[in-house]
Amino acid sequence: MIERAMALGREAEGMIRVLATISAEEGRLTRLYLTSEHRQAADLVGRWMTEAGLEVSEDTLGTVRGRLAPLPAMRNAVQRLLIGSHIDTVIDAGAYDGTFGVIAGILATREIIRKHGAMPFGIDVLAFGDEEGSRFPTTLLGSQSVAGRFDPAALQIESSDGVKLADALRLYGKDPDTIAPAAYEPGEAAAYVEVHIEQGPVLEEAGEGLGVVTAIASQGRYSVTVVGEAGHAGTVPMALRRDAFSACAEMALALESLARSHADDFMVGTIGKLNLSPGASNVIPARIVFTVDLRSQSDVRRVEAMNVLRAEFLAIAERRGVSVWIEQTHEAKAEPCDPSLQAGFAAAITAQGGKAIHLPSGAGHDAQSLAALCPIGMLFVRCRGGISHNPAEFTSIRDMGLAVTALIDFIEKFDPAEATRG
Amino acid sequence: MIERAMALGREAEGMIRVLATISAEEGRLTRLYLTSEHRQAADLVGRWMTEAGLEVSEDTLGTVRGRLAPLPAMRNAVQRLLIGSHIDTVIDAGAYDGTFGVIAGILATREIIRKHGAMPFGIDVLAFGDEEGSRFPTTLLGSQSVAGRFDPAALQIESSDGVKLADALRLYGKDPDTIAPAAYEPGEAAAYVEVHIEQGPVLEEAGEGLGVVTAIASQGRYSVTVVGEAGHAGTVPMALRRDAFSACAEMALALESLARSHADDFMVGTIGKLNLSPGASNVIPARIVFTVDLRSQSDVRRVEAMNVLRAEFLAIAERRGVSVWIEQTHEAKAEPCDPSLQAGFAAAITAQGGKAIHLPSGAGHDAQSLAALCPIGMLFVRCRGGISHNPAEFTSIRDMGLAVTALIDFIEKFDPAEATRG
Repeated sequence: MIERAMALGREAEGMIRVLATISAEEGRLTRLYLTSEHRQAADLVGRWMTEAGLEVSEDTLGTVRGRLAPLPAMRNAVQRLLIGSHIDTVIDAGAYDGTFGVIAGILATREIIRKHGAMPFGIDVLAFGDEEGSRFPTTLLGSQSVAGRFDPAALQIESSDGVKLADALRLYGKDPDTIAPAAYEPGEAAAYVEVHIEQGPVLEEAGEGLGVVTAIASQGRYSVTVVGEAGHAGTVPMALRRDAFSACAEMALALESLARSHADDFMVGTIGKLNLSPGASNVIPARIVFTVDLRSQSDVRRVEAMNVLRAEFLAIAERRGVSVWIEQTHEAKAEPCDPSLQAGFAAAITAQGGKAIHLPSGAGHDAQSLAALCPIGMLFVRCRGGISHNPAEFTSIRDMGLAVTALIDFIEKFDPAEATRG
Repeated sequence: MIERAMALGREAEGMIRVLATISAEEGRLTRLYLTSEHRQAADLVGRWMTEAGLEVSEDTLGTVRGRLAPLPAMRNAVQRLLIGSHIDTVIDAGAYDGTFGVIAGILATREIIRKHGAMPFGIDVLAFGDEEGSRFPTTLLGSQSVAGRFDPAALQIESSDGVKLADALRLYGKDPDTIAPAAYEPGEAAAYVEVHIEQGPVLEEAGEGLGVVTAIASQGRYSVTVVGEAGHAGTVPMALRRDAFSACAEMALALESLARSHADDFMVGTIGKLNLSPGASNVIPARIVFTVDLRSQSDVRRVEAMNVLRAEFLAIAERRGVSVWIEQTHEAKAEPCDPSLQAGFAAAITAQGGKAIHLPSGAGHDAQSLAALCPIGMLFVRCRGGISHNPAEFTSIRDMGLAVTALIDFIEKFDPAEATRG
């Protein structure tokens, strides 16, 4: 068992290394949507799909699709299992984020073909081109299109290099007027599953190579402004101060304590950006602007928590004689993973001797687009130190191999009727 | 009584308005050391001193001195009361900081001459030219020289516009080799007193126009670096984080709480400057660098408090698995005001119906240089909102008038023997 996993892991590592050479920048990995690097990567992935025995096509938004037809007897009432991830990267990326999920899908489907020829359901392996949103100020375009949720207004969005999406598609050889046909028919997709590196430290901490995703987290982002009063750091007694930074410090600890008390919901709260003014060592801060990023696997608990936090921030501000404004800048609902798909991955993990850790995904994934179309499931793979979006990103050959064998096991036991009932 | 004070206050306001027109910048007040504006202001102050009946001279560092000789019977064992402040300003300054102290000294001495002709002791009114340190990265050059503490190494210091102090002095018409004669002989100065706007809100809060300064605060400045670990704001559970900003927030509240608990020492603690990196809303902060400014009227209590704070910072860092470095960037010892001079100002305040509020000066003043030479005393004058170093700086005619009459009363009752015994 482990030998087979190791062999598949080595194969995956080799493919990842080859893909990682396709970069816009010498010495580091940057592969943006609809660029010539995207074209090269899509062509390579298409070739791998063909070699695996899949029928390859590419839609208007550049999603590469490798299709395995179901067993001949089943071809009238066709249902498909979709397996996907993305082949674009952030700037100065790691090699595993996204690409490993695509490669795992190709390798697992190839093994299915070798062993079974076909399954009672169809399999589509999907390689999306815009998950990171590193070129256009939007994200998940390919997966939204596949799910029938592409918004044509996005065609007018400009990239960071000043190119409209519609024009970038034309330069990529596509006709922006033909996006609709990429969408699956309702009922055609039985489920969407995605293998992805965890991008966090939970599996490493637990000593497990694989984990079952419970949900893609609910997320809210906020911009908080605190206004107090500037003053000379030497002449204004503590009791007469309205120090905006002290108020902010108290708010930061309130956020931390709130998130910690909701550990059962996998709640996380972060202040990642902060501006302090006037910003002189001998002047009491008058104005702080900081971000709050709050996530949870439950929408209800996150919204409840934010209400509690808002009240705490206002109480802190009132007690300290400062003003506070809280503005929401982003909102994303949680996308729960289908229980039967979770059970399928859990069974596959335990079958190969692992312990099935359940954890939410705090980061966004293509799977959240597909949730509009069909049940979704995700399998997480341990990555070293939880590090991602960084050249230090690393997942071991063993863990990748175990992910591919677990995915094969999952496919072999997959029942379209189960998932849809979820 | 109040009518005389109002008349003197109006006179002071008129003089302040005229001085405020001498600026390097149209529409705002900027008067830097050894500039042509300094020259004009020094000439005007010298003219006022002459008109008041004082004998005017100017030393190598540009300090203007208006001298009143003692009564003829006392001229053998001459002791002088020094009264001073500064006529330079910060960039975009208020009109009262420094200049009012010089004007109060001139007006009070003029009134002494009108009423008494002379006193048993001599009086020198001093107008220093470099208290703010806005042109050269140093401060208190004039007052250090008068106190016999000028360090010739300062002659090599360059201004923000790239001119060495020695060259700036030459351009101002001075010979840098003749600085030593500016210093008083030991025993010649009986005391130095300075009238200055408070630059803080304590007197306004207490509803009093005048206050007696107990000490120029002891001060330490520090640069604190906290290093934790960056991570994805969505994927790293709270329990596995080493968030540098949360640690910093806890440190900020520890500083605030420590300073508050030392209110009897007039302790103040400020974090005025902070840099957070990497500084993205969805990334856990890895590194924070912030300043700590800690002051107290007692050196011992400040140093003790900093030791407590250092231990608290280390404990917070250890508990949170982050690292902390604390580097001292500045240190200034407290300069206590002479008890008999404090008593003299307190008596003058109560004699005109006020309540003698005692408070330390959190900001630095020329008086701290003179402390090396003789006992020092300071009289603070209320300023609106505690605002200073800002065009909104304001002190009322009434409060300025009361400061001048209190200074006259103080001079009339001044006994050189008392102060020196202090």
